[in-house]
Amino acid sequence: MANTGDDRRPKYQRIADTLREEIRSGEYGPGDRLPGENDLMAVHGVARMTARQALGVLRDEGVAEARKGAGVFVREFRPLRRRGIQRLAQQHWGNGRSIWSADIEDRSLQVDQVSVSEEAAPDGVGAVLDLADGETVCVRRRRFVLDGKSVLLATSYLPTSLVAGSAVTEEDTGRGGTYARLAELGHKPLRFREEVRSRMPSKDEADQLSMSAGTPVILVCRTAYTGEGRAVEVNEMTLDAASYILEYDFEA
Amino acid sequence: MANTGDDRRPKYQRIADTLREEIRSGEYGPGDRLPGENDLMAVHGVARMTARQALGVLRDEGVAEARKGAGVFVREFRPLRRRGIQRLAQQHWGNGRSIWSADIEDRSLQVDQVSVSEEAAPDGVGAVLDLADGETVCVRRRRFVLDGKSVLLATSYLPTSLVAGSAVTEEDTGRGGTYARLAELGHKPLRFREEVRSRMPSKDEADQLSMSAGTPVILVCRTAYTGEGRAVEVNEMTLDAASYILEYDFEA
Repeated sequence: MANTGDDRRPKYQRIADTLREEIRSGEYGPGDRLPGENDLMAVHGVARMTARQALGVLRDEGVAEARKGAGVFVREFRPLRRRGIQRLAQQHWGNGRSIWSADIEDRSLQVDQVSVSEEAAPDGVGAVLDLADGETVCVRRRRFVLDGKSVLLATSYLPTSLVAGSAVTEEDTGRGGTYARLAELGHKPLRFREEVRSRMPSKDEADQLSMSAGTPVILVCRTAYTGEGRAVEVNEMTLDAASYILEYDFEA
Repeated sequence: MANTGDDRRPKYQRIADTLREEIRSGEYGPGDRLPGENDLMAVHGVARMTARQALGVLRDEGVAEARKGAGVFVREFRPLRRRGIQRLAQQHWGNGRSIWSADIEDRSLQVDQVSVSEEAAPDGVGAVLDLADGETVCVRRRRFVLDGKSVLLATSYLPTSLVAGSAVTEEDTGRGGTYARLAELGHKPLRFREEVRSRMPSKDEADQLSMSAGTPVILVCRTAYTGEGRAVEVNEMTLDAASYILEYDFEA
């Protein structure tokens, strides 16, 4: 894996390797400005296009980001820690705290663009929720914003037959949120499944999450089940991968 | 979020949107060949560069992949399901099965390029394992290959003071693997933490995992703890995101 002496790689790759190593070693820290095209041209004796390509490699890897008119900077990675298991522990939402509060620690995560509607269930969701043909779902969409930047898009689906007339269909679900309301309705979530994937964002997702180039999204699909094993909610989340670490703690 | 009538977007973006929608609706299924540059030029009345850019958008998103000389195809996503919790359940490795066997279901996951060495602990690892200055670790590197394609790189770190002279330092750790050996040594792992991130691969990672363009890696860092809370192993895994779904099942 050592690149030492591997002179067959294109020059811009080798310059990118050098810069990456200097970032890894801490010579350039998070938020530091990297050498510009002119600096790289002078130091490495290369053409502007080669210098530009080298910086492009680091941008595409998400290691660096361009700021208009200011240069290329080492990406700052100061992610939220999302605890998949502790945060869903009954003690949290049972006490009336939103399940999201464990995510934010001392930083201000805000929910905006909340919308609630009744819709036909998407195919996959209908299957998981075991809906009959034509049964509708209550769809709750919202966006989570941290320090002014959107970091997560979430869409929850719940069977209309389960939640019609309850606060689950209101923008403000009240103390303890959706899961506390489901418990009151006799459908207390007791088991959860989270499925995690990652891919590059679509243009729309990148726009909605104001993402930099070279940054993937993490997709988390969470299903909540009652003690009888009935699926009562599917929550599809799209996370800016530069903003999140997911954590799962469990016993053997 | 509807693109209808949004004519201010560049033409290649709108062509990409159309193709993406046709893929989403199933008109083009996994593995199907997409219209080529010539087809797109004729259908949309655009220049070759515009057609090429449209296909480039789908490649960069990981929705499609180019095959040399054959065209651009809808990416096939037939991932492994990796169960973070069930697969570590004692019943699995306690019975002498490798913790990885739950991953493969009916497909053939093979381990190759196993190497074991004694090394200085990387900074972060030394801190988690609570090592004294200069204490070394046993480093186990291996690669997991599915159907001929490498899908996961794993590097485990264990304190040398714990495992010296045991089969943990051999290429073949024997029945039940590393965790069964740790149990025999009186350091049975009982609690686990998995931290999950995602980013674009470095050139080396992309090469080692034979990854297509527009595909991120998922990073899983697993720490194993004894009942007394001592960290006995750190395992850093790099997964081809196109090959994996991670699953975590847990109770409220």
